[in-house]
Amino acid sequence: MEVTRKNYKDSLNTVYSAIEEADFLAIDGEFSGISDGPNVSALTNGLDTPEERYTKLKKHSMDFLLFQFGLCTFKYDQAKSKYITKPFNFYIFPKPFNRTSPDIKFICQSSSIDFLASQGFDFNKVFCHGIPYLNQDEEAQLREQTEERRNQHANGGGTPSYISPSSSKSPANVPEEHKDFINRVIEKVEALFSNSEKTLDLEPCTGFQRKLIYQTLNWKFPKGLHVETVETEKKERYIQVIKVDEEERKRREQQKLEREQEELNDAVGFSRVIHAISKSGKLVVGHNMLLDVMHTIHQFYCSLPEKSPPFTINFFFYSFLCVKWVIYLFYLLTCRLLDTKLMASTQPFKELITNTSLAELEKQLKDTPFKSPQVETAAGFPSYDTAQEQLHEAGYDAYITGLCFISMANYLGSFLTPPKAYISARSKLIEPFFNKLFLMRIIDIPYLNITGPDLQPKRDHVLYVTFPKEWKTSDLYQLFSAFGNIQVSWVDDTSAFVSLSQTDQVQIAMNTSRYAESYRIQTYAEYVQGKQLEKEKLGQTVKSWGEDGWVKSHYASSTTSSGFGKRSISPVQGEQGSGEPLIADGWSHYSYPDSTGSKKMKTDGVCKRMRTFPAAA
Amino acid sequence: MEVTRKNYKDSLNTVYSAIEEADFLAIDGEFSGISDGPNVSALTNGLDTPEERYTKLKKHSMDFLLFQFGLCTFKYDQAKSKYITKPFNFYIFPKPFNRTSPDIKFICQSSSIDFLASQGFDFNKVFCHGIPYLNQDEEAQLREQTEERRNQHANGGGTPSYISPSSSKSPANVPEEHKDFINRVIEKVEALFSNSEKTLDLEPCTGFQRKLIYQTLNWKFPKGLHVETVETEKKERYIQVIKVDEEERKRREQQKLEREQEELNDAVGFSRVIHAISKSGKLVVGHNMLLDVMHTIHQFYCSLPEKSPPFTINFFFYSFLCVKWVIYLFYLLTCRLLDTKLMASTQPFKELITNTSLAELEKQLKDTPFKSPQVETAAGFPSYDTAQEQLHEAGYDAYITGLCFISMANYLGSFLTPPKAYISARSKLIEPFFNKLFLMRIIDIPYLNITGPDLQPKRDHVLYVTFPKEWKTSDLYQLFSAFGNIQVSWVDDTSAFVSLSQTDQVQIAMNTSRYAESYRIQTYAEYVQGKQLEKEKLGQTVKSWGEDGWVKSHYASSTTSSGFGKRSISPVQGEQGSGEPLIADGWSHYSYPDSTGSKKMKTDGVCKRMRTFPAAA
Repeated sequence: MEVTRKNYKDSLNTVYSAIEEADFLAIDGEFSGISDGPNVSALTNGLDTPEERYTKLKKHSMDFLLFQFGLCTFKYDQAKSKYITKPFNFYIFPKPFNRTSPDIKFICQSSSIDFLASQGFDFNKVFCHGIPYLNQDEEAQLREQTEERRNQHANGGGTPSYISPSSSKSPANVPEEHKDFINRVIEKVEALFSNSEKTLDLEPCTGFQRKLIYQTLNWKFPKGLHVETVETEKKERYIQVIKVDEEERKRREQQKLEREQEELNDAVGFSRVIHAISKSGKLVVGHNMLLDVMHTIHQFYCSLPEKSPPFTINFFFYSFLCVKWVIYLFYLLTCRLLDTKLMASTQPFKELITNTSLAELEKQLKDTPFKSPQVETAAGFPSYDTAQEQLHEAGYDAYITGLCFISMANYLGSFLTPPKAYISARSKLIEPFFNKLFLMRIIDIPYLNITGPDLQPKRDHVLYVTFPKEWKTSDLYQLFSAFGNIQVSWVDDTSAFVSLSQTDQVQIAMNTSRYAESYRIQTYAEYVQGKQLEKEKLGQTVKSWGEDGWVKSHYASSTTSSGFGKRSISPVQGEQGSGEPLIADGWSHYSYPDSTGSKKMKTDGVCKRMRTFPAAA
Repeated sequence: MEVTRKNYKDSLNTVYSAIEEADFLAIDGEFSGISDGPNVSALTNGLDTPEERYTKLKKHSMDFLLFQFGLCTFKYDQAKSKYITKPFNFYIFPKPFNRTSPDIKFICQSSSIDFLASQGFDFNKVFCHGIPYLNQDEEAQLREQTEERRNQHANGGGTPSYISPSSSKSPANVPEEHKDFINRVIEKVEALFSNSEKTLDLEPCTGFQRKLIYQTLNWKFPKGLHVETVETEKKERYIQVIKVDEEERKRREQQKLEREQEELNDAVGFSRVIHAISKSGKLVVGHNMLLDVMHTIHQFYCSLPEKSPPFTINFFFYSFLCVKWVIYLFYLLTCRLLDTKLMASTQPFKELITNTSLAELEKQLKDTPFKSPQVETAAGFPSYDTAQEQLHEAGYDAYITGLCFISMANYLGSFLTPPKAYISARSKLIEPFFNKLFLMRIIDIPYLNITGPDLQPKRDHVLYVTFPKEWKTSDLYQLFSAFGNIQVSWVDDTSAFVSLSQTDQVQIAMNTSRYAESYRIQTYAEYVQGKQLEKEKLGQTVKSWGEDGWVKSHYASSTTSSGFGKRSISPVQGEQGSGEPLIADGWSHYSYPDSTGSKKMKTDGVCKRMRTFPAAA
């Protein structure tokens, strides 16, 4: 079901009840861009820590707009032995709801926009009919404003807070240049009382003048009037004064109150759907969902934090929670997230699935040993046909993400004795996959763990190499050609991580590089230590520059992940040594996602210097 | 005529000849937003200097996208005694033209997008079919890349610059892990020579591998082959090897060259129209056109400068040119700009025109003493009907801007003896309006002067007041209530300019404020001096921080306008004293545009402190 501003209010109950009855929910988002900073290969370095990746995404991806949100609810029908689905495709746009509401600015990335355009994305639906939304701060602020205006306008109410103490006793603090204007208003209202008219429309005026009018009329005519601000077709605002008895006054006040409440709910808009999802406590399934989750929190809850959490938690949890406590918060609300890309990259699926992109995964999960899930679209919902791919429409992507989850969950049932064909979203079999969000293109850490410490693989076969900016990947291959296979992960134009195949080669490389002039090699441990020192130094400089917003925003991200320096101590996973981390749960021999991305060649431009190490013994 | 990526190439000659034959051109742009920083009232302070305004717009408006460009050409037909118009409405979008092309990010402002949506703007046309463009740097870079690739691919050419010296002698520097791959390619090509096939399609591979293939084949088979990169439908790139004799090889190379040249022109895209406009030297008319001109330069020429110009100019011109030399450059190219909003706000029009917004101006210029211009749309162009307003479509806005110019220009002819009904775009009568761009909401400087020093009105009746952030406009009215009429121009949350009606009140205010605790008053001269000192201090700090890009970009704007401090000396206009500047040309008694904007009330929120000056003597 397509939901825009036009049918949003009418659809809301349908959405609520679909969430309420569901066994699990699948979600997907479409954004106006991916990265406003480095290119994707720098954004996703193969040796990022989970914290670093989170910080980079937070810094470089949150200013884009999530402008299409797909939600597909799945409810298992025992009688039919199939899932009944209700897919929704929401168009989202932060239309300012009045003159004082936040005027959101968002970034568009040409390549992303062009990609969506090529997929037939309807931008007019987003910009002309997108559903508005407010995050929690904005909502609170709006409620406060409404409350304040209500106090201010209430006939015969207490002293409104906006009026200065002196003015509540008399309207004498009308500025000189407005006195004539206000006196004319008083005359007109007095005339209203003595004539047969019921209603008086004053001329359009400024907000300040309207405030003066409310203040004066409240003081001068505490009874018998209902005063209200009305907008002309040309959006000019004027005050309407109506002669009323006490009963009518109350009725009109009540109507006004209800209208305001409805306007407020309209402004909160799409965020209400997100609140309903999080309150439902249902399993939420997504494919490669880290960015979706971060955007959802950022746009509909609150800004993602740059600092450590404001609550006290035990030290063990501290290092991994500090930068992702809001995701943790989201987890607390939703209870369970499941990433189908991570699931497909993990045993027992890893061996069977060659390509974990959503479209390919969906296809592969139709064939043996998997089974196409039995699903049926609920009556009244347009049904998707997976043969006619509608990829990158968020509603469709959410739908096939749900299908993938069902196929994989059911496959786990084949290992039981006796085998079970249907595994529910509440089964213990899928618990090992909960709350682990797939990390793109990290060589040795497959996921960001929301409810436990992150994996900390040993990186003692990794070198950090700095070199002139003319160097390309081929120069690095050349330099290390004596060491056999290496893996290069670019950090920036003049540095990269080089993973050697054997740890004992590290010392040889370090020894040889002592005499090098144009490049420099550090071990991973030295690199981490250096970064920590740099951070401390920067922290001091920032302090001496004071509390300027821009200084903070530039550096805060690098001063946050205070657990980072402790990484090399690696108390938990480091012990296991193999570099391939193990965790203590059923299907947990997690494998490394393929790292094609980080191998990407930097091939253009001039490449003149070639250096080689002497062959290793 | 609507022009998108689909019909752009076919329309280009029509556009060129319309520009070439025109008497004058009218332009208009639609943007994805206005300000990414302060709200509009802070962006347009009523007492900005032209330099400050330019710097603010540059800093806060250039990251939006100009995504619709209107051009309307006007050619006078003597026989018909009317103008023949050719209106064009271009949709613009920076679609990346290949994988290495710039991936432009631009900001959208919700209120602007929402406004355009309400006017029926078609965003799908922009994002799906917008014409791409390159600025001059990007174009140069692309030409260089193409040249480089050409050298690299040229069979039997000299040593391509990308190949390291050693490799030109032998293909031995193929990295170890690619050797098998390259050897297989050689085998296949050798087989091609001995079989009856003409063409060999290699498997898709990476850019680096393609480079190795070109390099190896150039070296191993200097003759008899044409080698080319081809793209599959799935956008995978592979190399096609074709057996050819020398004649065919040359023909194919020539074809490839032409194709590349055409691709290059396609990438330069819409910028070619702007180049044609600027080369034409025609009068370019716009309405409130400062932002249009800045965006046009920024998007299709080069980044607007933050620093003083790289060329030496005489000192007199230095102070006003330093921050706007690129606009000056544009002026040099186009020769003449004319802003109809400035024209309408100036004598003799000022007295006759009550509202200078484009839509209202167009209506007023149809009535006496003005005359509706005689125009006719050229054959083959869809004609606009001013009765059915299509405001905020750039093509339509450009069209009615041109109409406004014609009406006003012809009106000037009524002052001649004998009166003339038609005044051409080349008439001396309109020269006083050349190259003066309207400045929104500045109290005492109506325009930015491109070809002369800016106006420097005396501001000795102006006070700079700082106060707690709770203060509102009404507090300031209260504070100065003894002085009669004042004008408040907000600078930020805690400061504002207050213009008194009489200069001799300044000393009274200064004396009284000595004992104030919560607020502080400075004269305008003191304020300017303080800012200059602050700038010098900041300049030193920036220096000590070195040449980091982000430091530069944050501060450069405040260190540029070096003429600013000299402002209060006011050698040229200051002499005339009245505060209402005069310039030496025919219609030059320029008046102040209305300053409603800067008077805007800051009325919301709590307002508790009220202070009053003792009444002035």
